[in-house]
This record gives sequence, structure tokens and C-alpha cells, in this order.
Amino acid sequence: MGEFLKLEKPSEALRTFLDQIPETRRPSETISTRLAAGRVLVEAILSPEPSPAFNRSTVDGYAVHANDSFGASDGIPAFFKIVGEVVMGKETVLKVGGGEAAVVHTGGMLPEGCDAVIMVEQTQKAREDQIEVSKAVSPGENVILAGEDLETGEEILEAGTLIRAVEIGGLLAVGLTEINVFRKPFIGVLSSGDELVEPGTSPQPGQIRDINSSMLAVLIEENGGIAKTYVLMPDDPRKMREITTRAFSECDALVITAGSSASTRDFSAQIVQELGQPGVIVHGVNIKPGKPTILAVCAGKPVIGLPGNPVSAFVIANIFVLPMLRRISGQIKHSDARVGIAKLKINLPSVAGREDYWPVRLEKTESGWTADPIFYKSNLIFTLVKADALAVVPADANGMAAGSMIEFIPLR
Amino acid sequence: MGEFLKLEKPSEALRTFLDQIPETRRPSETISTRLAAGRVLVEAILSPEPSPAFNRSTVDGYAVHANDSFGASDGIPAFFKIVGEVVMGKETVLKVGGGEAAVVHTGGMLPEGCDAVIMVEQTQKAREDQIEVSKAVSPGENVILAGEDLETGEEILEAGTLIRAVEIGGLLAVGLTEINVFRKPFIGVLSSGDELVEPGTSPQPGQIRDINSSMLAVLIEENGGIAKTYVLMPDDPRKMREITTRAFSECDALVITAGSSASTRDFSAQIVQELGQPGVIVHGVNIKPGKPTILAVCAGKPVIGLPGNPVSAFVIANIFVLPMLRRISGQIKHSDARVGIAKLKINLPSVAGREDYWPVRLEKTESGWTADPIFYKSNLIFTLVKADALAVVPADANGMAAGSMIEFIPLR
Repeated sequence: MGEFLKLEKPSEALRTFLDQIPETRRPSETISTRLAAGRVLVEAILSPEPSPAFNRSTVDGYAVHANDSFGASDGIPAFFKIVGEVVMGKETVLKVGGGEAAVVHTGGMLPEGCDAVIMVEQTQKAREDQIEVSKAVSPGENVILAGEDLETGEEILEAGTLIRAVEIGGLLAVGLTEINVFRKPFIGVLSSGDELVEPGTSPQPGQIRDINSSMLAVLIEENGGIAKTYVLMPDDPRKMREITTRAFSECDALVITAGSSASTRDFSAQIVQELGQPGVIVHGVNIKPGKPTILAVCAGKPVIGLPGNPVSAFVIANIFVLPMLRRISGQIKHSDARVGIAKLKINLPSVAGREDYWPVRLEKTESGWTADPIFYKSNLIFTLVKADALAVVPADANGMAAGSMIEFIPLR
Repeated sequence: MGEFLKLEKPSEALRTFLDQIPETRRPSETISTRLAAGRVLVEAILSPEPSPAFNRSTVDGYAVHANDSFGASDGIPAFFKIVGEVVMGKETVLKVGGGEAAVVHTGGMLPEGCDAVIMVEQTQKAREDQIEVSKAVSPGENVILAGEDLETGEEILEAGTLIRAVEIGGLLAVGLTEINVFRKPFIGVLSSGDELVEPGTSPQPGQIRDINSSMLAVLIEENGGIAKTYVLMPDDPRKMREITTRAFSECDALVITAGSSASTRDFSAQIVQELGQPGVIVHGVNIKPGKPTILAVCAGKPVIGLPGNPVSAFVIANIFVLPMLRRISGQIKHSDARVGIAKLKINLPSVAGREDYWPVRLEKTESGWTADPIFYKSNLIFTLVKADALAVVPADANGMAAGSMIEFIPLR
């Protein structure tokens, strides 16, 4: 077995790998903004108009000339004559003179000349057409001026921004109902192993159903990729090479789960190496589970080899496949706020230098999350079914004590 | 203005509201397991077969009778004769006698009578067909027995489970390629206000584009609902009643963003009240932004009234609409591991008794996340576009000091 001569640190392995993926211009398409959640902007977006488009009130109240309220106090209130009401959705033509006020609702247009709004809660009706005010307002108070939020031509979104619900709101607010986004990347998903059969069939003794293809496809689809699954590959170099080469030509990246035997792992690394330069960059990562991971870039396309065990494959997909997917999706801005922190309920052993991922149950308490690790022997998928998250024992830790804080990645 | 007589605490308001939603049996459908991510199980799932289906090795190594290794040490190694190799994917017919071993790969089937596997790393080749072992293995070591993970009939998933990638893997592992899930709930999304125009049109002075319908629809779709948007409602009780009543009859729940004028808010509450018993349960929540929130249950269907301001509407949708959606989707198990924790970069003022939601920028540091609040005046949506998350100042806090830990909900 020629692998694992040197086990790389996961964070360094990831950086080395991502650095080798060229920033080629990906194909793009123009789509409806309303349907763009999860997509990535090709170009920066400049506002085509000012926002707001007119001077608006930010409260329910009375539009006035602020200086008419100066000096108002509980002892000496200021009085304003109500000259009308701003109608929502119409350009207002109300004239508001000195000592006068107009009723205005939140979002309503300010009559010309008015520069402040007195909140309704800070007024009293003196007469039907008169209010009494015991506190002065400053010019600009409770008002947002035309163009105060956005000027025409101002950059509202950077190139490479991942579109969320709020970006859709922002784009529609300035009338941009179509945008140019990167085409979703095609990720080829391949599984190999003579023991594998399709999930819909009954395995014979010695066989198991392939679940990695489906799990990885779901993960890829939930994170902005299009998963293209292929026929199961037998442990036969000629067949594997044929299917892998075809998938490689049809996709923007490949994710391959390897057969279990050592010789299969050896020739699957060899087949990846043949796909193009520079080929295999990392072979073996100091991580548990998932040591026999392969990270490669072949002729500009990333190729990731995952262990065949479903728990290992799923953990490694979270650590390596998702960042790769974000990279080739064109995402530049990404906060990855998925990582949470919890108090560990029991001691966890670990080996210094190795990063350990533990399936954990989370529980919400008064003082935050607690994480209860799930011990497992067999690496079968039901370990993960019981888990809310993967908790991380960092490489520089020599085990973690109960009560210490541990980072987690929620499973979804 | 008859509203806000009593402002309820957000957590209590939510509980009171959810408690009033009846647990009626929702319609269900049978779908492909592979396409079930985000769906919710109707019934508990029992395993139709044992898992694993046969005794398997969990490592690469040599299948043996454990007692043949007893007493092996560096000084006095045990020797095993290699009698063959377990072929992956086939029922093995190898006979392994006393002092004999069979090559087996991870996941491979154990020959009959073997009860342990010696890891390849702990062996040395003595001759071509012989290995030398200097450490004993116990019965069961590196082996998983048939049915050890799951017995036939064992409950593998509870009713009400939200299906994630790993549940899909688990179901396919035992051959369940179709499952019975709740039909996605239809959520009617309604916006009212004379000032609103469709995003695709050019607003006249005094008008603005409706963005709430689209933002809320995206949020609903990302969280397992089907959003049904309706024509914009003018500030006209007769028209509002007509459109709201129609939407109510077509959907499982309604989310209505109210027009801005106080009188519109009054009659929209009235229209909700008329939809059915018990009607409005909460009117006014002690939360910022989002005070004028309405929570109602009418003839068994939840109806939520949101403030018209987009920032407020979006915050309130995260706090109240998403839990409502999970409830009517049939989800019982839900860890909500979305909530994270970060170190606050600056002091935040707050009013005791009120829960404040601040848009924040997150930054990852060596010691965890930091949260940098975004101050805003106008409540326009671009405040949220700059944000990675909403941070929460709890109701019992009197402001929060820089350096204290604050909970956040990532925006996506």
C-alpha cells in the first residue's frame, strides 16, 4: 500500500488544494431575481436609481418644519395646525407653512419643505385640527431623504455574492427583476466497489447497497451544485478508467468514493492521476474519520477521492467537498456562519496532530448548547442519523475534557 | 389606534400561539427517498432487515479465530497460514481452520467461524503464505456482527423526523427507496398598502416596490413550505377582505404584511379576526424591530400579520413564521442548531423587557466568532444585505457590553 506516506493537516490540505483550482471564468446565465436564492452573482451590481426615491417618514406622525418646534417643552408646548394628510402611494401636493403640520404615515412622502416628523406618541390633540408638542424635533429627525440609502450608481452587491432572501429583496427594491448568475456547477458523483449494489435491489450475501452516491448528491444539491450520478463502478481498473474519464469530460468536478480494498484505492488514485496535471495534490489527511482522502486538480478540474465508508465519506464531504463547491460556484463572499459552539458533556480522547470529527447530539440549555458525543464502532450511517452535528477536536488538542467548549457543524 | 394595549414577551407570545395550532392530520404523499430532503416523515420507520446483513470486517486485515492469537507477544509471535482472500461482493466459502487466516478488506464478509480481524498494520509477512502477529486480538475485535447495528423491526426513524442527507442514507441502506411524507404546506403570502407596486414596474412619486412578498416566499420555500403569493392589496377593507378570504380558503396558513397607516393596521387585524375562532391571539410583541406583530389562529389555520417594513418583516418571519412552518409541516424533532454565539465588538443599548434583534457582520477569529452590529436609521433592506446574521439582545438584558457573548441566527 503506497498511500499515507505523509498525512497532511486538514486545514493545510484544504488550502493547498483550493489554491490549485484555477479561477477560470465560469459560464453564466440571466435568471429571474425571485428565483435566484443560492446562486452567485457574476458582476457587481450598481443601483440604477436612488433609494429612497423621495423623502419619506420613518414613523407615524406629523410632518413639520423642525424649527417651528424649537424651544417646545412640557411647560411651553408648541402648537401646530393640521392642514391635511399625506395619502399613501400618491405624490403629495400638500403645502405646509410655518406652524403647520401634515398627518403622515410610516413610509409616506414628506410634503415639500418639511424636514422632520414628530412621532404621534409625542403629540396631543389640542383641537380637532391642532396638535400640542412638548419636545422639539431636529431637522432630519424621523425622516429619510431621497438617495440617503443609495445613490444612483452606488455598488449594492459585490461580484461573487451568494444570493439570499435579503439580496433578492434588495435587488427587487431597486427594480432589478433579472440578474446574471453563474451556471450551477455539475459535480459528478461516482462510487466504486464490487460489493456495491443499487439501493433498490436486494443485496446477496457479501453485498451492500450504495448509499454514498445519494447522500453526496443531496449534500451537493443543497449547496448549489448539480449532482450527476453514474453507474456503480466495479473494482476493475479498465471499467473504472472508462467511467471516470467519461464523467470527467461531462462535469466541472468529480467526487469519487473508493472501493474498500487497498489495491482498488491504489488504482483509483492512479486513474485520478491520469486525468490531467497537476493530478493528486494530497493523498492522506490526518483526520478521523477520513484518513484515505485524495485531493486532486486535473486539467483545471477538482477531483476528490473519499473513503468508501459512509460516515467517513459524509464527514469528508463537509470538510472538503463543500469548500470546493463554493470555490467553483464563484462565491467570493462567504461567512460560513454554520459553525457553532457547545459545551462538551464528556471527556473525548484524541491523538495530537490529528483532527477528530465526532457525531454529537446537541441540547439547548439556559447557558447555550451542550454536545453529547455518540460513540460508534461500525461506522454505519445510523450513527449520523442520531446526530445533530459534527463536533471538532482540533489537531493541537490532546483530547478534550468534559465542560470545555467545542466547535460544531450542524448536519442538515 | 387600538393596538399594543399589552406587549407580550416574544418567547411567551410564540408559545401561546403555537399551542393554539391544532395537531390535525395533514395530507401525506409517498415519494422517492432520494428526493425527500427537507420533508417530514408521517410514520415511524422500522427496519425491514438486519444491518449489517452479514458479519463484516471493519478494517483491512486477516480474519482469524481470535483464540489462535492468545498469548502472542513481541517475544513469542503467533503465526497464521494464509488460506485465501475474501472476494468483495461475493458470499465467501473460504474455510479457515485453526492457525489459519484469510485476507479480508474493510467491509468484507467474514468466513464462517472467524470471530476477529487482525489489522494489516499489526502483522508482518513471515513467508508468502504466512503472517506473524505479535499482539492478541479479542473475539469481536474489528468485526461487526450481522444485526449488531439494527435488528429487523427496530425503529430507525421517529414519526415527525425532518429528512436530511444522512436520513436518506439510512433509509436507502435498508432498501427503503420510497417513504410517506407530509405534503408541503401552502403558505399564502399577502402584502397590503396603497403605496406598493410590483417589483417589475416603475414607482411613481409616493410609491415603492413590494419586496416583502418575494423575500418571505423565498424564506418559506427554503424552509419546506410552498409559497403562494397574491395580488397586492390596496388599503381598502372590502378588497382586503375579499383577497384575504380567498387566500385563507386556498392555503394552510397566511402571512400578511400590513399597510403602513394605522387605520389599515386596525382593519387588517379586524379582517384576520373575522376569518375564524379563536382569531387574534397576540397583537403587539415586545420586540425590536417588529412591535406591531399579529399572531392569530382562525378555524385551525395560523395567520401571522407582519409589519410592512422589510427589515421588521424579515426579522419577525425568522422568529415567528419559521417555527409556525415547522409546526404545520409536522416536524416533531427539531434541534434548531442554527443559533450560534459570538463576541460582541461594541456596546449595544437596549430596553429591559424588550428583545432586540440587531443585524451583525460576523468575523471568524482564532477564538471564535465576533459580531459587529450594523447601525441603521431607515430600516431599508440594504441594512440586512450587509449582515451575516441577526444577533439577539435578550429581554432581561439592560444593554450588552462590548466583549460579552451574544447569540446569533445566521441569515441565509
